[in-house]
Amino acid sequence: METGRQGDFLIMRFSDGEDLLEGMKQALKANEIDAGIVLGGVGMLKNPGLSFYVGGGKYDPIALTGEVELCALNGNIATVDGEIFVHAHATVGRSNGEAWAGHLSGGKVHMTAEIAVMALHKKMVREFDGKTGLRTLRFTQSGGETA
Amino acid sequence: METGRQGDFLIMRFSDGEDLLEGMKQALKANEIDAGIVLGGVGMLKNPGLSFYVGGGKYDPIALTGEVELCALNGNIATVDGEIFVHAHATVGRSNGEAWAGHLSGGKVHMTAEIAVMALHKKMVREFDGKTGLRTLRFTQSGGETA
Amino acid sequence: METGRQGDFLIMRFSDGEDLLEGMKQALKANEIDAGIVLGGVGMLKNPGLSFYVGGGKYDPIALTGEVELCALNGNIATVDGEIFVHAHATVGRSNGEAWAGHLSGGKVHMTAEIAVMALHKKMVREFDGKTGLRTLRFTQSGGETA
Repeated sequence: METGRQGDFLIMRFSDGEDLLEGMKQALKANEIDAGIVLGGVGMLKNPGLSFYVGGGKYDPIALTGEVELCALNGNIATVDGEIFVHAHATVGRSNGEAWAGHLSGGKVHMTAEIAVMALHKKMVREFDGKTGLRTLRFTQSGGETA
Repeated sequence: METGRQGDFLIMRFSDGEDLLEGMKQALKANEIDAGIVLGGVGMLKNPGLSFYVGGGKYDPIALTGEVELCALNGNIATVDGEIFVHAHATVGRSNGEAWAGHLSGGKVHMTAEIAVMALHKKMVREFDGKTGLRTLRFTQSGGETA
Repeated sequence: METGRQGDFLIMRFSDGEDLLEGMKQALKANEIDAGIVLGGVGMLKNPGLSFYVGGGKYDPIALTGEVELCALNGNIATVDGEIFVHAHATVGRSNGEAWAGHLSGGKVHMTAEIAVMALHKKMVREFDGKTGLRTLRFTQSGGETA
């Protein structure tokens, strides 16, 4: 992977075969970014690890294999127990144009992928929430409840 | 909903059952943001109100019910007659991975949703355009016609 | 097209019938932006030119015609041989809600489209890579190899 950085903005360019989420985590660590926004991602993935949240902390894997275009990547960067965690949802396109989408649990880059993230300096953490079974995003300096 | 803010960047974390567009509007109001860019959104929605524009000011509702992963949220924030208006298009994924997409007319959060927006200080307004039947985005200090 | 700019952030509002990628290129040129991030896009397209990369520099066109909602636009702006190049992947929704996605090779705006980009001041270039057949994104001032 190669990265280009300008202040709070970081672009990562992946090479064929690299693990997308693992690579993002490494680049974020190297750039000392532990909170941020995933601004977008394009490129290709092979056997993208899409999944669907069914509750109780469980994600059902989505049966999608082969090479796909990565067409949108949304999400954010926070920490779980002090460790960088990338929460991302992906939209991918198959060779016939059909789009699939889900929570991104894994997957390797095919050919190349270009990911843009933005660092935040206010910390965000994920804490277990018994009601949803999820590690819910929390703001250590909250803007307060607005609703 | 909880929000975390850093300068022009605002992250909203919704709880189960909250109305997404209404909640965004409330958080924007509380944060005095009336122009901006929707940078992305992830989480889940229940009975997402997707629709398709057919002209003449009419959106046809898309028949999609149940719980879906919110995989991409694009759009912007402007005012219509002085009132904050969020224009967003959503891409969602069903439990089988199938993606659906459209103009977001409504819908409640399922489990949680995390939305990132960026405030702009130059105002943007929406004004009715007879040709398309839409409230077209206008820049009060335009960068000028480039084409 | 009309544009609104605030510092490094540029919003383009397209009118019916305008070419999306060509229009973006013109607006970027007029705004002297030759590196950046595509933050998102919403609106509608007619006969969107989606395609799928099959290797060896070849994209297979995806057979999708008609009017669709533009629901997500991800990508970036770099130069190829000194010329501005927009690399974007699009997710679109059909009238029945079905999503399609792919590399965006062309397509005209239907009704309107609103695109947000962010300028970067560090240059990014695309250089031919024999291994993938692609013009790979390179950072002229690299953040270095992190993996």
